[in-house]
Amino acid sequence: MDVLQLIRQKRAGQELTEEQISWLVKAAVEGTVPQYQLSALLMALCYEHLTYSETRALTMAFVASGERLRWPPSVGTIVDKHSTGGVGDKTSLLLAPWLAAAGLSVPKMSGRGLGHTGGTIDKLESIPGFQVNLGRADMDRLLTEVGCAVVAQSTTMVPADKLFYQLRNDTDTVNEDGLIAASVMGKKLAAGAHYIVLDVKCGSGAFFKDIERARNFAQIAVRLGHDFGRRVACVITNMDQPLGTAVGNTLEVKEVLDLLEGRSQQPDLIELCVTLGAVLLVLTEGATNVEAGREIMLEQLEYGMVLERFKNWVAAQGGDLEAFRRDLGRLDGYRKVEVRAVRRGYVAAMQVEALGELLRSMGAGRYVEGDVIYPLTGLLAQKKVGSEFAEGEVLATLYARPDDPRSDQELGMALMRCYSFSESPVQRPELIHEIVGLEDYLQIAWQQGTARLGPPA
Amino acid sequence: MDVLQLIRQKRAGQELTEEQISWLVKAAVEGTVPQYQLSALLMALCYEHLTYSETRALTMAFVASGERLRWPPSVGTIVDKHSTGGVGDKTSLLLAPWLAAAGLSVPKMSGRGLGHTGGTIDKLESIPGFQVNLGRADMDRLLTEVGCAVVAQSTTMVPADKLFYQLRNDTDTVNEDGLIAASVMGKKLAAGAHYIVLDVKCGSGAFFKDIERARNFAQIAVRLGHDFGRRVACVITNMDQPLGTAVGNTLEVKEVLDLLEGRSQQPDLIELCVTLGAVLLVLTEGATNVEAGREIMLEQLEYGMVLERFKNWVAAQGGDLEAFRRDLGRLDGYRKVEVRAVRRGYVAAMQVEALGELLRSMGAGRYVEGDVIYPLTGLLAQKKVGSEFAEGEVLATLYARPDDPRSDQELGMALMRCYSFSESPVQRPELIHEIVGLEDYLQIAWQQGTARLGPPA
Repeated sequence: MDVLQLIRQKRAGQELTEEQISWLVKAAVEGTVPQYQLSALLMALCYEHLTYSETRALTMAFVASGERLRWPPSVGTIVDKHSTGGVGDKTSLLLAPWLAAAGLSVPKMSGRGLGHTGGTIDKLESIPGFQVNLGRADMDRLLTEVGCAVVAQSTTMVPADKLFYQLRNDTDTVNEDGLIAASVMGKKLAAGAHYIVLDVKCGSGAFFKDIERARNFAQIAVRLGHDFGRRVACVITNMDQPLGTAVGNTLEVKEVLDLLEGRSQQPDLIELCVTLGAVLLVLTEGATNVEAGREIMLEQLEYGMVLERFKNWVAAQGGDLEAFRRDLGRLDGYRKVEVRAVRRGYVAAMQVEALGELLRSMGAGRYVEGDVIYPLTGLLAQKKVGSEFAEGEVLATLYARPDDPRSDQELGMALMRCYSFSESPVQRPELIHEIVGLEDYLQIAWQQGTARLGPPA
Repeated sequence: MDVLQLIRQKRAGQELTEEQISWLVKAAVEGTVPQYQLSALLMALCYEHLTYSETRALTMAFVASGERLRWPPSVGTIVDKHSTGGVGDKTSLLLAPWLAAAGLSVPKMSGRGLGHTGGTIDKLESIPGFQVNLGRADMDRLLTEVGCAVVAQSTTMVPADKLFYQLRNDTDTVNEDGLIAASVMGKKLAAGAHYIVLDVKCGSGAFFKDIERARNFAQIAVRLGHDFGRRVACVITNMDQPLGTAVGNTLEVKEVLDLLEGRSQQPDLIELCVTLGAVLLVLTEGATNVEAGREIMLEQLEYGMVLERFKNWVAAQGGDLEAFRRDLGRLDGYRKVEVRAVRRGYVAAMQVEALGELLRSMGAGRYVEGDVIYPLTGLLAQKKVGSEFAEGEVLATLYARPDDPRSDQELGMALMRCYSFSESPVQRPELIHEIVGLEDYLQIAWQQGTARLGPPA
């Protein structure tokens, strides 16, 4: 077999076989395939698209390329959550302890990410002492004692994905549903959870700009889950504005803490966590339907169980919340750029991708692996889409590095180019578009009232 | 500038600028562009296609990447010929001395080629003593004394094309008109001829399978010629069967010699040379129209001028035709596989590409640079498309290496899979489809009878 033959075959519109894809991934990891042939094939795949069979074969080969985690029944009902990536998305920080409070076990592997702003791991590292590199024994202990653990993606899992992802990133071959699905699901399958919910973002700040793309991706992911003996459902959610108010590593952790301690309200963030959690509760048969799942989730929050679990979890991973709180004092001394309204009006839209790029340019995220992140750098979006504002009111606040070469005015102007305004009222966007893949389980497990489903093989 | 940006731009359907392409080619030659990004861009170009402006910019950048030849008026009217490649195409061997006999100067650079069978250089090297590596002084002397010289492509000319071609060959990104045109015309422009004829092959054994593709390519080439101040015309010719009877390095040189010395007739080969020559005579204003050009060409052949020029030329490049004739005796001792008809009929079609692949597998051509060619290996296609044959008559003869692992029967069967037959008469295919790009020159120079065109700047 050789790659040139695979390229020719795909370009001629013929499906690649499972055997060919398995060979390709193995050869790529072993380094016996020239990168220039691999990148040419990836580009051809972007134009010809992957069939479902090719996507499944690629996912399988990704999983087979590295270590696969298995969880003993003693650590509970293992669930996992993944987001396709948005701006200001601190969901995992909140959802991990929240799901643990609801009785599920959440061993979450996260990447540092090359996104506009840091990944979950970067956010957690803004808490002094927080350890993101835990061994298996520590994870088992955390799951048993706290119910959740969030650690940095191990290099021994899906090494093929790492290699493919880097190449895709360097050759503009990221944007193909089959490749994305294999990358996301390969990691989730290798991480071993039986129940998985994906937050599929859709909108101007998301990878999928329209609902059709998001839905197509969601259906592939659900089908892959089924074929690999897992229960997977997707929640398609809006990403036409940042989630919550804060964007940036320290600011996002602060927002989660403020929310849990009752100092601020973030209805969209809560709504998203409640929905994702409810879906997982349905998948794991902890709730009979999404509405019942939502009630369970909301109860945990109201009774303060999430805050308690959050504190226990952070402490269990070595994080010092008191030191974090003290560190927040440094925000006051940080360079702050407030943008105020020159006249009354409404926020009509936010260019979330441009906003993310601005924050990345300010040091909140990375361009290439190894770039240093400035944890305090970020944004508070006091006004979001649909918000009314008065003349002189603060629309948004940037936290910038003191040595950022741009003037306050330049930064403020750059920020305002990410907004558009209206003089008449504007509808707030719906956060939850739809849930994909839950019907089957609901039908089988509950509506038909037939035999109980055991955990998937 | 970076390649990723160029890939993104092209994938978004935006034209690359001359500046970007010039930068890309320079960076590729300097080795500062990763090959995996270059190959991904090439694949994107194959899918999005090159605009004419991109093709022109790429051609210009190719030419600028290396040495450009210039010819003093003392060496005569410099013409050049290129073929897009076929099976059994020994045109250059015949046309170079033929054009010289007709008063033109032909400094031809040829590649060894990675084709099914050897390139012109490989064919010439089957003549003992023939020197294909000549310096500039030797070439000037040959042009003055004999009127033609055929030498191996210098490595100092269009190095960018060599690099791109190798990468395209390894990644199935050969088949894009703009890339082909830049590669062909880059080499021809750098070689410095003012008058260029391209033999654009079209058919089952050619790169262009249909006339529309061939015509599109021809129009790009003519336009490039015009934009670079050259006169270029293309002859679109049929490649649904080999040209002449012989395929293979030694056999093809023998066929040319036999034809010139009156021992065999090859009407299609003669017709092609006469037409290509006539077009060059029109371009150089040595003939008023193609018909007049044909007459000049045919006269040279009839009066034996081509044979004389052929002998002088071969001798001037060190070739020993007597030794070549003696060597032919080795053909008798070579393994010969004759395929005979089991009943009477007509040749309906030949799968020329499959035929070429068979010959390559037998050692007549190369798979990769550096592969050894077996000069005596080849085919005599005694019957071609439209030929009638009787029961027991020889259809074709393979000359195989004695150590070819396949049995005679296997080789014969493989050969016959490249043919199809009919019981009723079959039309012979037309050799010359059309001539592209000559109208302008004819109109300007002759029909309007206006001011004489000087040689292009």
